[in-house]
Amino acid sequence: MNYSRFFPPAVRRALAYEPPGAWMPPLAPGVIRLNAGYPFPDSVPIQALVQAAQRLAAVEGDLPFQYWGSPSMFRLTDILAERSAARGIQVPEDGLMVTAGAAQAVDLAARALLGPQDLVAVEAPTYMEALEMFRNYTDHIVGYPVDEDGLQVEALAADLARRQREGLPLPKLLYTIASFQNPTGATLSPERRRRLLEVAEAFDFLILEDDAYGELSFGPPPTPLKAMEGADRVIYVGSLSKIVAPGIRIGWVVAAPELVAAMRVFKKDLDHPLGWATAAQYLARVDMEARVADLRAAYRHRRDLMLESLRREMPAGVTWTEPGGGFFVWIRVPGVDTQELLPRALAAGVAYVPGKYFYFGETGQGRDCLRLSFSYLPPEELQRGVALLASVLRA
Amino acid sequence: MNYSRFFPPAVRRALAYEPPGAWMPPLAPGVIRLNAGYPFPDSVPIQALVQAAQRLAAVEGDLPFQYWGSPSMFRLTDILAERSAARGIQVPEDGLMVTAGAAQAVDLAARALLGPQDLVAVEAPTYMEALEMFRNYTDHIVGYPVDEDGLQVEALAADLARRQREGLPLPKLLYTIASFQNPTGATLSPERRRRLLEVAEAFDFLILEDDAYGELSFGPPPTPLKAMEGADRVIYVGSLSKIVAPGIRIGWVVAAPELVAAMRVFKKDLDHPLGWATAAQYLARVDMEARVADLRAAYRHRRDLMLESLRREMPAGVTWTEPGGGFFVWIRVPGVDTQELLPRALAAGVAYVPGKYFYFGETGQGRDCLRLSFSYLPPEELQRGVALLASVLRA
Repeated sequence: MNYSRFFPPAVRRALAYEPPGAWMPPLAPGVIRLNAGYPFPDSVPIQALVQAAQRLAAVEGDLPFQYWGSPSMFRLTDILAERSAARGIQVPEDGLMVTAGAAQAVDLAARALLGPQDLVAVEAPTYMEALEMFRNYTDHIVGYPVDEDGLQVEALAADLARRQREGLPLPKLLYTIASFQNPTGATLSPERRRRLLEVAEAFDFLILEDDAYGELSFGPPPTPLKAMEGADRVIYVGSLSKIVAPGIRIGWVVAAPELVAAMRVFKKDLDHPLGWATAAQYLARVDMEARVADLRAAYRHRRDLMLESLRREMPAGVTWTEPGGGFFVWIRVPGVDTQELLPRALAAGVAYVPGKYFYFGETGQGRDCLRLSFSYLPPEELQRGVALLASVLRA
Repeated sequence: MNYSRFFPPAVRRALAYEPPGAWMPPLAPGVIRLNAGYPFPDSVPIQALVQAAQRLAAVEGDLPFQYWGSPSMFRLTDILAERSAARGIQVPEDGLMVTAGAAQAVDLAARALLGPQDLVAVEAPTYMEALEMFRNYTDHIVGYPVDEDGLQVEALAADLARRQREGLPLPKLLYTIASFQNPTGATLSPERRRRLLEVAEAFDFLILEDDAYGELSFGPPPTPLKAMEGADRVIYVGSLSKIVAPGIRIGWVVAAPELVAAMRVFKKDLDHPLGWATAAQYLARVDMEARVADLRAAYRHRRDLMLESLRREMPAGVTWTEPGGGFFVWIRVPGVDTQELLPRALAAGVAYVPGKYFYFGETGQGRDCLRLSFSYLPPEELQRGVALLASVLRA
């Protein structure tokens, strides 16, 4: 039977893209995963999380195993509100919602705001899974360039002014990873942050701030857009994936209650009582400031190792970013198609994410770029991976 | 700032309904929760699940705490395929997808299939949260009556024939809880099952079979529609919520690979590695056949107690269903508006779900009905709750 005839037009439109995750082919065992944007294994508080689940069961019995009713589950909202407030964010009553990772928060914001005719603005390059989410709602995605100070806000402003003059649609939403961006590692400067909020006001759009990496700064931490003047236009997305563990799937959104209420209507997978309550039990006991300080030092060390390896190994002409936090380095290899190169790199034993996946559409952008992650691998593998990649580039 | 101007028309349409969950007001402590469709606390294998998480951490280290990569997480798909096959369901390659409970499976099926102009057929009454999900996609929801043998398939067939004659839209999807329905407890008879599959073929619609209660039969278990001839039109939804625990949020869908692939595109909250892997570890060790046999006996006992209490306590004229499985009894109280009665019942110390929420739209249907659950409460509270409700009805 042909099932596609049952799909409504908006679904057929979304299905016309290549399936999500095409950027990551299956990897053979032993391949060095410089592609993996995962926290390193020793950073994951495995025992503390298992103990939190044990404690939870002892204290709350069946409640966290039911649909609803666990006190710890409810407490998680307050704990995350406190974490947000500690970063300068004002959390209104009913203005915080826990989500299944930052991904669900981004998806729900897109779902509440983007119709098939709406325009969404993104950084170019940007997080490929966010692109996969946005294109589920609209084909109208416009990218604005990123440099070492993050999104080029003046280029954005100029283009929006042009669009306005020419009667073209203006974006309803701008998605930014303002701090330690995925994939470039770039951070939006304080001046550009202020300017971006002004531009949002001037052209009347909302900002979706994905702050998944914001706490993992190697110097003074940047101030979230959501903590600045003009924050009422900002939908803030936080995550425990990088500072606790991705597999417990805890993200959250802070936004105007009216927006949160709309997002909640579409959040129909219910919530994850056991995961939420376990996270709350864990967070109630851990010294997160000490933990985050340790993580910053650990990731800074890995970043330094990767930059050293790149300097030592890479052929002339290859360039890269020097991130001030987060997980990623963005590499440019002039004249090389990184998608075509990937099979050879995998055969040599090293994986990366080809740059083209961080751009929307077949623009040709990012073809000579690739993303490396320094977050996941042990130092010696990280160095070996860079050396292998360099040898493939030289071959 | 007024944010609603940012909502696209389809979102504004969905937001025009009363918020989801309006059927459940906050309950004071001590209220007897005959409303709660939860498994009873002692049925939840708390220690076994915590031990499964411990074992998982010991065997797999950080993998189930990462985004991806846990062998147990992958194994869950196979285990659920085996459970489905044991019920006679053929699971094609790439035809099973794990979801965050049955709710996410229903939501994704709706998302992949229902455009704003599409018609969806439901049982009347039906699961209120399914109605909340469908109305997020379309206003066009038509209900067909249910009697003690489940959906009245001939009434459906006759109405579809009339619609066809009159050039009216035909449904693209029919949602059914064919076994131990929520809220009536009714089960579709074998004859009607066969006929429903014929009608689906004749009028070219798909069937969304929510089998959340299917294993909790008090007699010989019914055969799922997905295990019968014509199953290629059936999207089967299973759940561990009632036979293990709701809070681990494990559901699954079995359907044609083309449909599963489409649903997967929209499943952008990623998956829940820790929950999946814990469930797989648990299922790998437990004797589920023995467990389900125990649950059947326990729920049958509770059903019997509730029916006894109803016979003993209820005033003349009140009628109820006699379910052959599942969690629910559906009560009719002629001449009483059960929504208006609810505050008095709560004040007296007993909660139920008013019948109107199980129907779509303001049709007046279900006004004199209510749903009671015998699944959650200890026997003495169950009996006391029925007695309290009867006293409120008599007052």
